Amino acid sequence: MAGKLYVIGMGPGSMEQMTPQAYHALRECDVIAGYTVYIDLLKDHFPGKEYLSTPMTREEERCRMALAQSASGRNTALVCSGDAGVYGMAGLVLELASDYPGAEVEVIPGITAASSGAALLGAPLIHDFAAISLSDRLTSLDTIWRRVELAAEADFVICLYNPASRSRKDYLAEACRLILKYRGEDTVCGIVRQIGREGQEHKVMTLRELVSWQADMFTTVYIGNSETKRIGDYMVTPRGYRHERK
Amino acid sequence: MAGKLYVIGMGPGSMEQMTPQAYHALRECDVIAGYTVYIDLLKDHFPGKEYLSTPMTREEERCRMALAQSASGRNTALVCSGDAGVYGMAGLVLELASDYPGAEVEVIPGITAASSGAALLGAPLIHDFAAISLSDRLTSLDTIWRRVELAAEADFVICLYNPASRSRKDYLAEACRLILKYRGEDTVCGIVRQIGREGQEHKVMTLRELVSWQADMFTTVYIGNSETKRIGDYMVTPRGYRHERK
Repeated sequence: MAGKLYVIGMGPGSMEQMTPQAYHALRECDVIAGYTVYIDLLKDHFPGKEYLSTPMTREEERCRMALAQSASGRNTALVCSGDAGVYGMAGLVLELASDYPGAEVEVIPGITAASSGAALLGAPLIHDFAAISLSDRLTSLDTIWRRVELAAEADFVICLYNPASRSRKDYLAEACRLILKYRGEDTVCGIVRQIGREGQEHKVMTLRELVSWQADMFTTVYIGNSETKRIGDYMVTPRGYRHERK
Repeated sequence: MAGKLYVIGMGPGSMEQMTPQAYHALRECDVIAGYTVYIDLLKDHFPGKEYLSTPMTREEERCRMALAQSASGRNTALVCSGDAGVYGMAGLVLELASDYPGAEVEVIPGITAASSGAALLGAPLIHDFAAISLSDRLTSLDTIWRRVELAAEADFVICLYNPASRSRKDYLAEACRLILKYRGEDTVCGIVRQIGREGQEHKVMTLRELVSWQADMFTTVYIGNSETKRIGDYMVTPRGYRHERK
């Protein structure tokens, strides 16, 4: 008989932001698979498990490893940071699952970086927003820039995942330049780094400042819409309730 | 001395999907304020608190009530379903806070409907997506339709909040018609209702079927991008890992 395969969003990193649903699924599993860094965060909390880790870019290998464990009859967890369903591995697991008859997949959601980072900045995502990854490892740059421009034109608050890496140092600046075609230099923006982990930081700034901000792969970036404002140290997008009809 | 005001995203509804951070903040509070329906979900789990509830459309009143409690020195929680920072009340609280000197606001994120619903459907939000509310109570219809069209043109997966209400029965159909200018009738779509609560249901369908789907205010809607596929009963948006560079 095949075991369960839970694809688990562990949230930003701390146990305080992992749901009981995720916690209980991890407790129930014999095997926990994931990217090395996330596995290291879990080992102390879930002793006595078999841990399987792979480096960051080996997503397919990681998914197949977890599916094979599950198909062999062991309850297995595949952990993702944030939400397993937002730039996470839930999709790939479901695409590959037919190669592993009997593996029963369940996706357990977690708090994605857009949400956990927003809470630190105040309330940037209160109204319509677009999430865009600037990683061109699996998406063409043409598609990415086109989405950035149309999102700017539509006046979405924009949340950028993977804004930079060692080989993509200038992508955030390019995204900002495209957005500047539609929004002013004083547009309120924010960055968050290392959400829920050691070294966590956040900062509210203007779009002008963001152009030359050196982001890294642990940064999530927020670009406000035309109504987003700075209130003290907070970035706040209104929904218009101050003018609500009584 | 003023008390804390926690603006808390309680997640989709069940205690299993509320983070320990939210749970501990609620335990620490003297007063819990919120929309009647959410308050009723909490009363059994947090006895001995003072509960303050207001009907659904009275957001400003609810925020001011919570801020006043906090300013008077009581630790207070203002609860929102899903994430307090996504179509939630974190923004309005921060806008009004300056009227209540000393109230110390902290936003505690939760799992928003986009994430919790996606987990039930499979993995529709694996890649870039746009979240749009079809409620025109506080946003002009022109802005809403413009965002829907530009999001469709940009090939975002689209997640619709508030797709319908008693007075807006035909808005989802109109959104679908706009999206059909850019995507085929066979585009994979999904709906989720009453996430994490009694009567929870979900269904994968085509965009053609979605046009005539009667959504209600407890429904969240997902419209796939050009690559989203149906795998068994799941809605899955690929990131392209099957073709990853080795």
